[in-house]
Amino acid sequence: MGQNFTTISEIGEFELIKRITTEFPKNQTSTIAGIGDDAAVIATENLQQTVVTSDMLVEGVHFDIVYTPLKHLGYKAVVVNLSDLAAMNAKPTQILINIAISSRYTVESIEELYDGVRIACEEYKVDLIGGDTTSSKSGLVISVTAIGVAKSEEIIYRNGASKNQLVCVTGDLGGAFLGLTLLEREKRVFLEDGNMQPALEGFEYPLQRQLRPTARTDMRLIFETLNLIPTSMIDISDGLSSDINHLCIQSNVGCMIFENKLPFDPSVIELAAKFNLNSSLCALNGGEDYELLFTIQQSDFEKVKNHPDISVIGFITEASEGMKMELADGNIIDLSMKGWNSFSEA
Amino acid sequence: MGQNFTTISEIGEFELIKRITTEFPKNQTSTIAGIGDDAAVIATENLQQTVVTSDMLVEGVHFDIVYTPLKHLGYKAVVVNLSDLAAMNAKPTQILINIAISSRYTVESIEELYDGVRIACEEYKVDLIGGDTTSSKSGLVISVTAIGVAKSEEIIYRNGASKNQLVCVTGDLGGAFLGLTLLEREKRVFLEDGNMQPALEGFEYPLQRQLRPTARTDMRLIFETLNLIPTSMIDISDGLSSDINHLCIQSNVGCMIFENKLPFDPSVIELAAKFNLNSSLCALNGGEDYELLFTIQQSDFEKVKNHPDISVIGFITEASEGMKMELADGNIIDLSMKGWNSFSEA
Repeated sequence: MGQNFTTISEIGEFELIKRITTEFPKNQTSTIAGIGDDAAVIATENLQQTVVTSDMLVEGVHFDIVYTPLKHLGYKAVVVNLSDLAAMNAKPTQILINIAISSRYTVESIEELYDGVRIACEEYKVDLIGGDTTSSKSGLVISVTAIGVAKSEEIIYRNGASKNQLVCVTGDLGGAFLGLTLLEREKRVFLEDGNMQPALEGFEYPLQRQLRPTARTDMRLIFETLNLIPTSMIDISDGLSSDINHLCIQSNVGCMIFENKLPFDPSVIELAAKFNLNSSLCALNGGEDYELLFTIQQSDFEKVKNHPDISVIGFITEASEGMKMELADGNIIDLSMKGWNSFSEA
Repeated sequence: MGQNFTTISEIGEFELIKRITTEFPKNQTSTIAGIGDDAAVIATENLQQTVVTSDMLVEGVHFDIVYTPLKHLGYKAVVVNLSDLAAMNAKPTQILINIAISSRYTVESIEELYDGVRIACEEYKVDLIGGDTTSSKSGLVISVTAIGVAKSEEIIYRNGASKNQLVCVTGDLGGAFLGLTLLEREKRVFLEDGNMQPALEGFEYPLQRQLRPTARTDMRLIFETLNLIPTSMIDISDGLSSDINHLCIQSNVGCMIFENKLPFDPSVIELAAKFNLNSSLCALNGGEDYELLFTIQQSDFEKVKNHPDISVIGFITEASEGMKMELADGNIIDLSMKGWNSFSEA
């Protein structure tokens, strides 16, 4: 190996925090005080509201350290929270990160994790303004809080969908789940024969969707450019099925989705076939695509119909009609709550 | 036992979140949207700044489930974050909580934890507006983010102390550490003989300081009433020694503290004697008292000298003079950085 590794206890908590929090430039003028005091201070502009979300990633539950590079993990931990802000149509501005790490992690590995955090901060122009770094008895736990701003009238909630409105998604679906499936298979192969090299070529896209997801914070500008105000919105973190359930229940409506309107990347369809999986089921139940699911007025159809980042996949019905999907063969299925439940895997 | 226990997987993540987040009344008019969407929304008032902090409590590192009732733990997890806001002289308004729990915890135990969170929210008039509940492979991890507000000119940073100013603390010190020492001893006794009942009588105060600490959010009003603006402030979470180091280093000053000015509760002195411990060392290195350490102009001495909640314990010197404490016997010691480091215990 030839590399030097530093244990965390060698340098101590304060030195570790110092090392990992340097080189985080300030991107937002609203960041008055960041790391280094009892709390961070953010300036608030008149007529802006603060939008805030927090999520936790747990080793062995949300990620497998065997095939998750720490840099990607740090990056993803930030992005999944920014995705929640994007789902409110808010502009992300600051994040706080708490991590608990066991002593088997080296200082260098934690620096790698924070490299990923730094890259995400740069790409999304958010400031790391605080957090806590502590030890854990086992494994790695990352908790991220993301803060954003939006004018009151810009914020899009889950509960604004109503009958006859159109259901849209950004980007394409199912990729993150297939990327995970591929990584899980290669891990099994590797555990059986340590000399086997993982066969990942040609599937960079689904792997990237799993390991280095994108938060659709770009949609805020796209909506503005299209002069389009979605009536409701949610991000697809648990799978289309689960997330459309949330949206419909909170809006007290039903929906009809068309399977043949679901957007897929060609490499995702190819990989699904390779695993004998149904692409649509990957989109419905896979999760982690971090695309946005939103509804618009029917009269806004012209604004989105030719947009490369937006697919119209169905329409809103009355609550009594339930949440349905018409399959490519004409059959109609129920979209019952089958989203990923981390507890059932515990 | 006769009680029914419910496993988390029996009811699932969404039902669990529903159960634990009901009965959280709204205390703050600034809370526009709380739990139930992709993110929470907070109204911001003109001329107010947002103050935000986040901390993580890890089973086996920050708490021992053997002697920490879950209700107290939930309460404490909130309070330690509100203490950070108090240390900025901000008014706490909202919190978010992420928890990771292993499947050995029952639904009822998590409800107990949230009972403590709810009591803290009621007492401090803050709103629970979000968070994440997920599984962990082992143990319990709680991450709390607390949000508060203050006018720009009200916020007190760590870096405002200067030469000849007076060093003050609120309340009394050392109690939380002695409460912990007592709990640790009783745990050892119990492990040796399971029939022994813990001998905790007469020491309710230090036990309460450890298990049910207080955030000094009341000081904001006291400062206002006294027409007093501290020049710098920090909360005592790691121990007086460590925290005065932070304050002095960030203010680029030194200090002289007088041992015989340190405030102690009589029960704390009694308990320290019982354990053959030096009360002053408990105050310096124990931590978790969550009192406020702050500096004031010398000319403000009259305002604080008779206040029952404030003790003047020393004064600020030049950085070159270092951080010192004059002992009761006249000897002078260095207050070097000896604060609690969670990594060295990992």
